[in-house]
Amino acid sequence: MRSPLCDAFGIDHPIFAFTPSEHVAAAVSRAGGLGVLGCVRFNDTDELERTLGWLDDNTDGKPYGVDVVMPMKVPTEGTSVDLQAMIPPEHLSFVERTLQQLGVPPLPEGEGRAGVLGWLHSVARSHVDVALAHRPVLIANALGSPPLDVIEKAHEHGVKVAALAGAAKHALSHVANGVDVIVAQGYEAGGHTGEIASMVLTPEIVDAVGPDVPVLGAGGIGSGRQIAASMALGAQGVWTGSIWLGTEEYQNLQSNEGWTEAFTRATSSDTVRTRIYTGKPARLLKTRWTEAWAADDAPEPLPMPLQNLLVAEAHNRINASGDPDVISMPIGQIVGRMNEVRPVAEVMADLVSGFADAVARLDKLRA
Amino acid sequence: MRSPLCDAFGIDHPIFAFTPSEHVAAAVSRAGGLGVLGCVRFNDTDELERTLGWLDDNTDGKPYGVDVVMPMKVPTEGTSVDLQAMIPPEHLSFVERTLQQLGVPPLPEGEGRAGVLGWLHSVARSHVDVALAHRPVLIANALGSPPLDVIEKAHEHGVKVAALAGAAKHALSHVANGVDVIVAQGYEAGGHTGEIASMVLTPEIVDAVGPDVPVLGAGGIGSGRQIAASMALGAQGVWTGSIWLGTEEYQNLQSNEGWTEAFTRATSSDTVRTRIYTGKPARLLKTRWTEAWAADDAPEPLPMPLQNLLVAEAHNRINASGDPDVISMPIGQIVGRMNEVRPVAEVMADLVSGFADAVARLDKLRA
Repeated sequence: MRSPLCDAFGIDHPIFAFTPSEHVAAAVSRAGGLGVLGCVRFNDTDELERTLGWLDDNTDGKPYGVDVVMPMKVPTEGTSVDLQAMIPPEHLSFVERTLQQLGVPPLPEGEGRAGVLGWLHSVARSHVDVALAHRPVLIANALGSPPLDVIEKAHEHGVKVAALAGAAKHALSHVANGVDVIVAQGYEAGGHTGEIASMVLTPEIVDAVGPDVPVLGAGGIGSGRQIAASMALGAQGVWTGSIWLGTEEYQNLQSNEGWTEAFTRATSSDTVRTRIYTGKPARLLKTRWTEAWAADDAPEPLPMPLQNLLVAEAHNRINASGDPDVISMPIGQIVGRMNEVRPVAEVMADLVSGFADAVARLDKLRA
Repeated sequence: MRSPLCDAFGIDHPIFAFTPSEHVAAAVSRAGGLGVLGCVRFNDTDELERTLGWLDDNTDGKPYGVDVVMPMKVPTEGTSVDLQAMIPPEHLSFVERTLQQLGVPPLPEGEGRAGVLGWLHSVARSHVDVALAHRPVLIANALGSPPLDVIEKAHEHGVKVAALAGAAKHALSHVANGVDVIVAQGYEAGGHTGEIASMVLTPEIVDAVGPDVPVLGAGGIGSGRQIAASMALGAQGVWTGSIWLGTEEYQNLQSNEGWTEAFTRATSSDTVRTRIYTGKPARLLKTRWTEAWAADDAPEPLPMPLQNLLVAEAHNRINASGDPDVISMPIGQIVGRMNEVRPVAEVMADLVSGFADAVARLDKLRA
C-alpha cells in the first residue's frame, strides 16, 4: 500500500509501530514500516543514548521514530522524593494490601527500580534532547501536543512531530500548535485513550484537520482488513501498538512468560479503560489487579504523575511474579486476536497482503 | 454497491435501516435499501396491523423488515399492574424528584400512555404474529436470538431472522439457534450495545461465524466511508439507525423540536452508555436526565423490563416538554455528524456515492 506518508517519511508502507522494544522498532523499519521507540521506560538517558545508537546501526539505514510522554501543560513536578510525599497513606496501604491479597511477593533483595520517571516532564525533555542527536524522522507525543519549544526544536532538526488525539477539537489544537501528523486514537486502543471509537473518530478528525494534515488511524488495528478500514475512513496510514507485543523480537525485552500467556488467552472483552496506570484513562488488560481497583473499597486513582509513582513498584513486583491473572499490561481490544508469537517480518507481510486482499474484495462489491 | 445480501433480500444496496417510523422505513426501501420498522412502540397490535398495511402499500412493492425486542429467556412477566408493584418506592421517588429538579412538567390532563409494553415478551410475540401476516422479508431481534419457536415460525413463512451480537460468542450462539443474519453491534452504536468497538468486533464475528453467515456492521455508520470501512472489515452490509432520526420523513413521527435541536448540536462526545433506559446497557444522548442517574444519590437501574416501566412516563413527560437539555434519546456516537435534516433519498444517495468514492480512493493506495 502507498500513501503520501510513504514519501514524507521514506517508508514503503504507512504502518507506524509504537513499541518499547528497539528490536521490534528496528525490525518494523527494516520491513518497510516506521518503528517508533517508546522512550518512557528510560530513566537513564545514557541507556536511551546507547539504545538509539543501536537503532542507528540496526535499521539498515531505514528511518525510525521515537515516542515520548509529555503533557503540554507542565504538571506537578519535583524530585521523585518530593512527589512520593504527595501520595496519601491510604493509597499506599491499599496497594500493599492488594498485592498481599493477590499473592504477589516482594521483589528479591537488591532488585527493583524507581518509578518510571519518563512520565515526568523534565525526563521526557531529556528524551527529546537525546533523540535529536540521533536520526529519528518523527517524535510522537502520547499525550497530545508537546510544548511549543519542543515542536520548534524538532522542526529545526528536520524532524516531524506527531500527537495523539481522542477528539476532533484536540486534533485542531495540535495542528494550531504546529504538530505535523495526528494519531486518531480510538476508544478500542491500548494505553491512553478517549471514549470515541475509531469508526466515528477517524473521519471526524480527517475532516476537521483537512487534506493537508495526515491522520493515522489508531485503535483496534491488527490486520490488513483493519488497515483498509482505517484508510477507507480517510486515514493516510495507521498507528499500531498492541500487536507488536506478540512478536519474537519483543521477547528480547520482556521475557516474562506471564505476559505472553496473558495476552494469548485474552479475548477482546478482557480489557478495561481505567485511570489506575497513570492517572489518565488508559486501556489495560483486565486482571485481578485492575478488578481490585474497581472494587468498592478501592481509592480513586491519583492525578498524573502521582498515580504511576504509586503503582510503579507494584507493577515491577506483579510483572516479576509472572502471574498472568494479575499482570499489569496496557493493551487494546485487538488482544483477542493476538494468539501466537511470530516474527515482526511475518506480521508486517500479513498486514500488507491483508490490505491488498481487502481492497480487492471491496472492489468486487462495487456495483 | 453490491453484496450477496442484495440478491438474498431483493435490494439494490446492502443498507439496512432500523427506524421506529414507517415513513422512514418505506422511503429507505423505495430508495433501494431495506427499511426495518421498530415495533417496540406499538402497545396496540391493531395500530401495528394498520402501520404494516400502510407499509405494504407504500414501498412500491419493495421489501421491508420488522424489528422486535425479545429476550430468548422469558424474563419476569405479568400484567403491567403486577410489574409496577415490583418497582421499589425509592426508585419512583427518585424519578419524580429528578423530573421536578429538571423542570419537567406533568403531562397535560388526559395525555400520556402506559409504559412501552413492547419490552414485554408477550407483546413482542404478538408483534411477530401480526408481522407474519404481512410481507416482511426479515425479522430482526434487538436482543439477540429470539426463542427457537419464533425462529422456526419465521422460517416457515420464508422470513429470515437477524439478531444483534456484541461479542463473537453471542454470534455463534445465534447461528446455532438458526439465526440467518448477524448484526455486529459495536460499542459506538446507539441503543443496546456492548463494549467492543466495531473495528475489532466486526472481523471477529465475521471470522467466527464463517463465510456462509452474512454479517451486518453496526455502530458509527453514517457515511459511505464508514460503509466501506465496515465492508473492508468483512461485513456484507450495514445496519444503521441513528442517522435516520435526522431525516424529513422522521419528523412525521416525532415532531418534537427538542429532539432535532438536541441531536443537531451534539458532538460525538455527547453520548453515554447506561442501563437507565431498559435495564441493559444502551447508548443514549448525554443530557441532564442521564447525568442525574449518574450522580451519587441515584439508585441503581432496575433489571429489564422493570426499568423501562419505571421511566416510561418520565420519558413521555420529558419528550413532551421538548427541553433539548433533558431529552431521553437512544443514539450512537455518529450523532456528532447529524447536523441537518434531509430527505431519506438524499441520505441514501450520499451513502451510495460515498462508498464508491472511498473504494476508488483505496484503490489508488494500492502499491
